[in-house]
Amino acid sequence: MERQLMYAPTARTVPTRYRERARYDRATVHGILDEALVCHVGFGGDGGPVVLPTIHARVDETLYLHGSTGSHPMIAAAGAPDGLPVCVTATLVDGLVLARSWMHHSMEFRSVVAVGSARLVRDDDEKLRALAAVVDHVARGRSTDSRPPNARELAATAVLALDLLEVSAKVRTGGPVDDEEDLTLPHWAGVLPLTLQPGLPVAATDLDPATPVPPYLAEYRRA
Amino acid sequence: MERQLMYAPTARTVPTRYRERARYDRATVHGILDEALVCHVGFGGDGGPVVLPTIHARVDETLYLHGSTGSHPMIAAAGAPDGLPVCVTATLVDGLVLARSWMHHSMEFRSVVAVGSARLVRDDDEKLRALAAVVDHVARGRSTDSRPPNARELAATAVLALDLLEVSAKVRTGGPVDDEEDLTLPHWAGVLPLTLQPGLPVAATDLDPATPVPPYLAEYRRA
Repeated sequence: MERQLMYAPTARTVPTRYRERARYDRATVHGILDEALVCHVGFGGDGGPVVLPTIHARVDETLYLHGSTGSHPMIAAAGAPDGLPVCVTATLVDGLVLARSWMHHSMEFRSVVAVGSARLVRDDDEKLRALAAVVDHVARGRSTDSRPPNARELAATAVLALDLLEVSAKVRTGGPVDDEEDLTLPHWAGVLPLTLQPGLPVAATDLDPATPVPPYLAEYRRA
Repeated sequence: MERQLMYAPTARTVPTRYRERARYDRATVHGILDEALVCHVGFGGDGGPVVLPTIHARVDETLYLHGSTGSHPMIAAAGAPDGLPVCVTATLVDGLVLARSWMHHSMEFRSVVAVGSARLVRDDDEKLRALAAVVDHVARGRSTDSRPPNARELAATAVLALDLLEVSAKVRTGGPVDDEEDLTLPHWAGVLPLTLQPGLPVAATDLDPATPVPPYLAEYRRA
């Protein structure tokens, strides 16, 4: 079956503002989800909305989140036979946009919002594939350079799957757009780029000092 | 009235897992909120939970969010006379924690979760103070080096205020904690530090090239 290049916009994925910044093509959405190290998952708790940061991984058109079976979202998902309604949002900040007026200050950013019902993954093979993807999302290639979970560890880990059906990206690039009458104001205007930069790897105190730093860390890049 | 040094933990702010990582002291919470450039705000939408990235600013014990009066959360807040139940989460990623086993992989991070009912700010003076704080949250000192909003701009901007009453931080630092029997595995283990780094300021194409880069951008730091 041929896959559509675009996600279909829905009432929940069309922004109320700046619709020209919305993107629905899979390439943009996938790129943002894969580059963002963490996402924020929102769900309805007993006492109101809950938003928690968590790591994620995309496998084709499924977004996986994981956590302890005793964690808040996993307990909520276990009690939701039809899936847990969630909103998963991943955001990359690329720069500050400084305009002459407060009003036109902005950010260069790329974000993805995915909504839907997340299901608890019951199948151990799918769970293992999802966890491998999560480890490789942290650092590409790491899953084959570390020990996979044993049966006890696998049982203690819960995995949520959200199929990417209702999803949109929002992208803002470029410099400030000032009002004509503000252009003669004396204030500096432009963009301060921001990037997430890796530092030098710090070996664990209990690591054999002869262990080389693997290339996926020595040349670490998110994009 | 003397202010307590700590926020009182509540059922909503005690994590289900890793309680030893929870922090309730104001200094830690304020530090994370002030350093994090953006937060994620969650609220209940018509079609389920919604999580959106947004910039914020803290003024004493109030967290301010702003947006167009036509934006999704502001419309929701305008329709909630008792305030809009929200969860605001700010997350700083400080590094990857690479363990010998998949299971013990983790992140160095600092996050804050604040819950409560957010009120729409109706008073123009408070709105202006909040917007100045937001501009200064982007770059300290910027509010006095750019044009404040005029009456039309102020009317088009909505500000939400969340009093910091139910709030907690979660902090994880340090290297991997591997199982004893994994220590002889050949895999590298340790931390890859990550920091949000500013690049060189890029002037707007319509900026007078004689305009100097202000010191708050030339020496930009979040922490």
